[in-house]
Amino acid sequence: MNDLKVVVIGGGSSYTPELVEGFINRYDELEITELHLVDIESGKEKLNTIFNLSKRMIEKANVGIKIFQTLDRQKALEDADFIMTQIRVGGLDARVLDERIPLSHGIIGQETNGAGGMFKALRTIPVILDIVEDVKKYAKKDAWLINFTNPAGMVTEAVNRYSDFDRVVGLCNIPVNMKNQFGEIFDVDPETIELDIVGVNHHFFVTDILLEGKSSIKALLDMYASGELQNTPTMNNIESLQWSKSLIKSLEAIPNPYLNYYFMTKEQLKAEREQYEENNVRAEEVKNIEKELFQEYADPDLDVKPKALEERGGAYYSDAACSLVDSIVNNRHDIQYVNTLNKGTVSDFPYESVIETASIITSDGPKPLNYGQIPYKLNGTLQTIKTFERMVCEAAVKGDRDIAIAALTLNPLVDSDTVANDVFEELYQAHKTYLPQFD
Amino acid sequence: MNDLKVVVIGGGSSYTPELVEGFINRYDELEITELHLVDIESGKEKLNTIFNLSKRMIEKANVGIKIFQTLDRQKALEDADFIMTQIRVGGLDARVLDERIPLSHGIIGQETNGAGGMFKALRTIPVILDIVEDVKKYAKKDAWLINFTNPAGMVTEAVNRYSDFDRVVGLCNIPVNMKNQFGEIFDVDPETIELDIVGVNHHFFVTDILLEGKSSIKALLDMYASGELQNTPTMNNIESLQWSKSLIKSLEAIPNPYLNYYFMTKEQLKAEREQYEENNVRAEEVKNIEKELFQEYADPDLDVKPKALEERGGAYYSDAACSLVDSIVNNRHDIQYVNTLNKGTVSDFPYESVIETASIITSDGPKPLNYGQIPYKLNGTLQTIKTFERMVCEAAVKGDRDIAIAALTLNPLVDSDTVANDVFEELYQAHKTYLPQFD
Amino acid sequence: MNDLKVVVIGGGSSYTPELVEGFINRYDELEITELHLVDIESGKEKLNTIFNLSKRMIEKANVGIKIFQTLDRQKALEDADFIMTQIRVGGLDARVLDERIPLSHGIIGQETNGAGGMFKALRTIPVILDIVEDVKKYAKKDAWLINFTNPAGMVTEAVNRYSDFDRVVGLCNIPVNMKNQFGEIFDVDPETIELDIVGVNHHFFVTDILLEGKSSIKALLDMYASGELQNTPTMNNIESLQWSKSLIKSLEAIPNPYLNYYFMTKEQLKAEREQYEENNVRAEEVKNIEKELFQEYADPDLDVKPKALEERGGAYYSDAACSLVDSIVNNRHDIQYVNTLNKGTVSDFPYESVIETASIITSDGPKPLNYGQIPYKLNGTLQTIKTFERMVCEAAVKGDRDIAIAALTLNPLVDSDTVANDVFEELYQAHKTYLPQFD
Amino acid sequence: MNDLKVVVIGGGSSYTPELVEGFINRYDELEITELHLVDIESGKEKLNTIFNLSKRMIEKANVGIKIFQTLDRQKALEDADFIMTQIRVGGLDARVLDERIPLSHGIIGQETNGAGGMFKALRTIPVILDIVEDVKKYAKKDAWLINFTNPAGMVTEAVNRYSDFDRVVGLCNIPVNMKNQFGEIFDVDPETIELDIVGVNHHFFVTDILLEGKSSIKALLDMYASGELQNTPTMNNIESLQWSKSLIKSLEAIPNPYLNYYFMTKEQLKAEREQYEENNVRAEEVKNIEKELFQEYADPDLDVKPKALEERGGAYYSDAACSLVDSIVNNRHDIQYVNTLNKGTVSDFPYESVIETASIITSDGPKPLNYGQIPYKLNGTLQTIKTFERMVCEAAVKGDRDIAIAALTLNPLVDSDTVANDVFEELYQAHKTYLPQFD
Repeated sequence: MNDLKVVVIGGGSSYTPELVEGFINRYDELEITELHLVDIESGKEKLNTIFNLSKRMIEKANVGIKIFQTLDRQKALEDADFIMTQIRVGGLDARVLDERIPLSHGIIGQETNGAGGMFKALRTIPVILDIVEDVKKYAKKDAWLINFTNPAGMVTEAVNRYSDFDRVVGLCNIPVNMKNQFGEIFDVDPETIELDIVGVNHHFFVTDILLEGKSSIKALLDMYASGELQNTPTMNNIESLQWSKSLIKSLEAIPNPYLNYYFMTKEQLKAEREQYEENNVRAEEVKNIEKELFQEYADPDLDVKPKALEERGGAYYSDAACSLVDSIVNNRHDIQYVNTLNKGTVSDFPYESVIETASIITSDGPKPLNYGQIPYKLNGTLQTIKTFERMVCEAAVKGDRDIAIAALTLNPLVDSDTVANDVFEELYQAHKTYLPQFD
Repeated sequence: MNDLKVVVIGGGSSYTPELVEGFINRYDELEITELHLVDIESGKEKLNTIFNLSKRMIEKANVGIKIFQTLDRQKALEDADFIMTQIRVGGLDARVLDERIPLSHGIIGQETNGAGGMFKALRTIPVILDIVEDVKKYAKKDAWLINFTNPAGMVTEAVNRYSDFDRVVGLCNIPVNMKNQFGEIFDVDPETIELDIVGVNHHFFVTDILLEGKSSIKALLDMYASGELQNTPTMNNIESLQWSKSLIKSLEAIPNPYLNYYFMTKEQLKAEREQYEENNVRAEEVKNIEKELFQEYADPDLDVKPKALEERGGAYYSDAACSLVDSIVNNRHDIQYVNTLNKGTVSDFPYESVIETASIITSDGPKPLNYGQIPYKLNGTLQTIKTFERMVCEAAVKGDRDIAIAALTLNPLVDSDTVANDVFEELYQAHKTYLPQFD
Repeated sequence: MNDLKVVVIGGGSSYTPELVEGFINRYDELEITELHLVDIESGKEKLNTIFNLSKRMIEKANVGIKIFQTLDRQKALEDADFIMTQIRVGGLDARVLDERIPLSHGIIGQETNGAGGMFKALRTIPVILDIVEDVKKYAKKDAWLINFTNPAGMVTEAVNRYSDFDRVVGLCNIPVNMKNQFGEIFDVDPETIELDIVGVNHHFFVTDILLEGKSSIKALLDMYASGELQNTPTMNNIESLQWSKSLIKSLEAIPNPYLNYYFMTKEQLKAEREQYEENNVRAEEVKNIEKELFQEYADPDLDVKPKALEERGGAYYSDAACSLVDSIVNNRHDIQYVNTLNKGTVSDFPYESVIETASIITSDGPKPLNYGQIPYKLNGTLQTIKTFERMVCEAAVKGDRDIAIAALTLNPLVDSDTVANDVFEELYQAHKTYLPQFD
Repeated sequence: MNDLKVVVIGGGSSYTPELVEGFINRYDELEITELHLVDIESGKEKLNTIFNLSKRMIEKANVGIKIFQTLDRQKALEDADFIMTQIRVGGLDARVLDERIPLSHGIIGQETNGAGGMFKALRTIPVILDIVEDVKKYAKKDAWLINFTNPAGMVTEAVNRYSDFDRVVGLCNIPVNMKNQFGEIFDVDPETIELDIVGVNHHFFVTDILLEGKSSIKALLDMYASGELQNTPTMNNIESLQWSKSLIKSLEAIPNPYLNYYFMTKEQLKAEREQYEENNVRAEEVKNIEKELFQEYADPDLDVKPKALEERGGAYYSDAACSLVDSIVNNRHDIQYVNTLNKGTVSDFPYESVIETASIITSDGPKPLNYGQIPYKLNGTLQTIKTFERMVCEAAVKGDRDIAIAALTLNPLVDSDTVANDVFEELYQAHKTYLPQFD
């Protein structure tokens, strides 16, 4: 009997029903007995909506999960086994600014490795480090922190570098989404596919695809070369753009969809500028989706995860999280793609940095499969983003505006030092409340 | 008695008089007895002008250097001690295209690490590898090849990776120019200054400045922070733009002037677009300078290096080359900044790659001073250019257009995969004669 | 239907019945349809005995394996899926010399990383490289070579470094034996145990023991510290000696039993010298065991693997091999301990060297779990043996006696350069027939 | 006017007159104005003898050095520019025990990397770390600590790893002695020779010899191969033994004389055992030499460094130290062989460890010339000693007997874990007074 206590910080998130569904579906193997949804004062109403829906879902499923809602984080953390963080500091309104302000200066904002993502990191990292302190104090000694707050790579890097807590795993749904799309391409069950990936969160390449253990990257590259395939896997929150045959062929690797931002900057920027003009950048779109979702959630007759949630960009995030908990608890040794310490897995990345990589999941946490050296053609762009991530983490923890501005200047999406200064200043003023470390 | 034979390939270059002056000035220490100027058919006339001027200079100086001109490279190379390469495949007209075609697509061309520099490399590398084969066959076993043909870093990398000849040194005048400018800033003799530099040709940072051996980077950074200094060292062929205080302060390093292209792309592009509209891009400007220089050179009364040559962007290149020859011949152990094999000098660069670095110059060639790890903030941009360089070398040697296009796509100056394809295609058509390996 | 063809080179080995038993037990999952036992002329009689016993075993088990015996290696290899090598060049008589001659010079011979093992490698590696050539020519393109001929580490290193064939795995039974003994210590099923090991064949340390995925090395170290446990796991062919508490405690690792030779040299030498005087060194003992085994095997009533085989030092070798074949064929992803290319798995070992390490076994071969840096206290001794292995491989392939002598001189079991020279010379004379590369 | 203050800790050492002579000879370039000889109570008498002799030497030379003697270390350190440490904790009597006790257990003691050297390190490192604290508190901010107390490598490693003081250089006379002997072999001025060395203090190999900058290792190896040369350079405190041709030829490197201990252990041990029986181990011999030296020093008519000092094993140590001070003060950029931080100079050694390596000496301290990867054949033995050094440093600082015993067990001179335990225990009891950290 595992008798697990799980705490979800940012429990009022619209993703929570997927998480609850995941725990219900795995009830027999996981035996979660307590599920605590934690949020902050300003999220109280949403939390309540989510709590009530979750309660109905659990009752309908007739499983022995006791569910709680609270604003008292420390109390909730007492003797917790797993802590999941899915917070959004400043809410979606902050994200709207993260996207619109850079666009007003002629650069892509995006919420991961651009100016927008940087400010999300600057707002989020100090809060996560506070949570980590509470986890160390209140949770079980062998508790795991599973983070799927974006930018998940930087958050995990910051916890590893700037706290003495190392039982943290960062999660992203992109590798799983790519697996699913490769499954369609090859017309096989995605469960029988494994990927060799190299890089960091939202910035990696697939360098091999194993179908029932057989290396199949060459077959895939041939499909692109012949024109049989035209698009690489994409995300429903990213413009679908077609890579040139030359790029795929010579890199011998499939770029993850976020690489659009870096290697089709011009087209991506054009599309986003149009959304900007129409007041319909991704964050604004998401706000509408969320509004509708919460209306649906509030329906007292709803007692399952609504279909509409799957349209949201982060689909499978929560399922990936449940799957991770399951594999840790049950020492499953299945391969998952997680953000974890490099420690030489990829020879060319810093030993102490976090990477996104294929790992077997055990009761001792993720154990990365060795990767080796980065194929040389991929090295430059991957190192650039890793440098950016480390600079942002340092700026976030130290409240150092010079490092933040330099990070932006060095970012390939930013086309000038002066733009970097201007964008930083305007975003800083806009988010000042959430950036006390820069006072 | 050294009794040295020196062969200058591309002897008809406008830089040659500086080289001749350098050899005259060092005659007592070097004892060069034969100087062979080699060029190709289409450069015959210029070669003759240079040869006559050089002859007059030598006679005036009354030193025992015998000078020759020839189109027969192999014969000239027989028993040579030093071979200097300063060729320009396609001439300045090709450089005009290298700059104008990318600008017509909205990107910076520039002759080093951008689209223009890439095509210069694609044209030059096969020719240099041919020269290397001749050197191996005809020159002395312990002959040195000193290359100052741009892109000097890529050319040196290509020789090291794609031939079995390793007695090659690549030269650039930027470190010396920066030393001179630091000398002015600190009001000291530049000879008493040493620099710690990290990076590759045209893409490095100065991470320390030693004044009579005392580390003085902090003093310099303070001058920038206080506003006492506003501009970092620059080149007269590059727009002088002012870095933000944040960048200099947080990087704790002085960027080399070519980094303008990467971190002030927007402003640099604007300035170059204006030159483009006025038919006055740098290559066009240089063509005019060259024309005037050769008119001056042809004056039968001229018997010294004309002052005007110093205005040309490459000033001190040839002096640096003479100084290098001197230090090799005389085992001087002075510190020079050269392009040479990394072999672990900078821990994070590939072991087998070429870097630009401080080395003592001995009769066994350059011996780099150990540098250690790249300061992490500089790692991304440096690795990006190293990746670009390696891809261009591979594309040049294999005639692989896919790799060339991918190299452009990954280059931070190029804002889209589609632009990369278009620019490649147009430049390729323009330079086809000089790119037989892509047939 | 897998329809596998397996070829066993050295089929006349006394271990073969275990292999046959393994294939019989796994018949439903593996579907081996052809099993070819190959040997050389001088081993014909033994081969026949083994063949007949195997045939009786298969018939008794009533499985669909067709079994063959042959001296024609190339024919047997045609379209093979798996090739297993368990050869002994020179037979046990050679091993007697490997052990006795060094002992006569006052040093331990031993058949792995000492003088004896070196000569076994010198005799074996050229033969294995010949086999590899045949495998490349005759076997299926995706055939695997599974080697359990000792010294298994060096043999695998040599194949990786000196051929262009990389589908090779080296096997050893020690990790499995250690797992079994840890199972007894903790009173758990060994199947639920995993080990973190670092090193090379016969020279590694266990740096963690995971019981159902939970790190338990501290508990184990405490048992040694308190005296509750006195002996580390051992082999029945190695003297059982007791490590000092200081060693175990400060290394925070459990030495593999072969490390006795290196860290209890004096006692081990004393014991072996006594065996030497009594004409009962391990090889002589094994000769007697073998003789009895073959008498037993010849019994026409015997139709199962005889119990006595388990007393032989190599027990579980063959079972490990069957298990490896099974996991490759069925893409099992279970963790096995194999000799495979490092490629950065252990950061401090050469990238291109072979190590013994925990790997998941897939249809694409072994995928090592990342290990990271060697704990610094273990680094010296591990690098010493890796250096020794590489030198022996180079000497074996090039027939270079100087390197062989230097390898011995640098080996910690050899106490003098002069002894190294003398021992080399005497062993060389004794084994000359099998060392044509040194002529 | 430099106006330097130099403090010699262990000023009563018999080596001091060489140091004083060195400062006198370099008076014009160095302008040392104050020289403080510091010692402890029990060395008072010797200190006085040395002080008086030094005073007479200075007076005779008629240079402006003011000399002082004192037992007050902290006062002497006030505003010091250079601090030299040449202490011997426990004196020569302790060294006698360091050599005799191991020999009584059948192993070589030796004062560097064996059991004896380990105990010298255990006694010395805490004292040096205390001195470092005083240097930080009292000396000038940019003062340099120059250590030539043995084991110089471990002492320098300990200061770098276990204090936050990094202006330390460790010195040894072996590289200079080898240069001198190579000078004789090639019949050239040793000043025109440079060495490529790889390793640590007392355990390195010469991998190239440059005669006026020309690589000449092949010529040297040929002399050994042909028998023209039989002995590698040696020290007068080490048995002169002849390496086998195979070793030199295949390593392509010249071992430093201390490597006798490791690769001719048997012969070296035999010779030392004889000395042991005759009560004439090296330490006992040195005691006699010292006694005579001090008698000579006391002669009031003596006013120059006596010839006899040159027979002492450490000749040229002090001259090397003066030369180092000179090059730092005058930013000379000459190549010297020092113990300094690796920082990637040798790729395979730990980044943060101390190595002995060729460096140019500047006013910013030693700048190592890049070395690159360790030739693979040398890697094992070099890593073994580096591991030993690090373990001894850790044991010395933490007072951890388990690590000390394990370090001995892993040392190639010690043939058994049980011997390691016994030798440790007996040496510990003998030196207990000087090992308070182990209480």
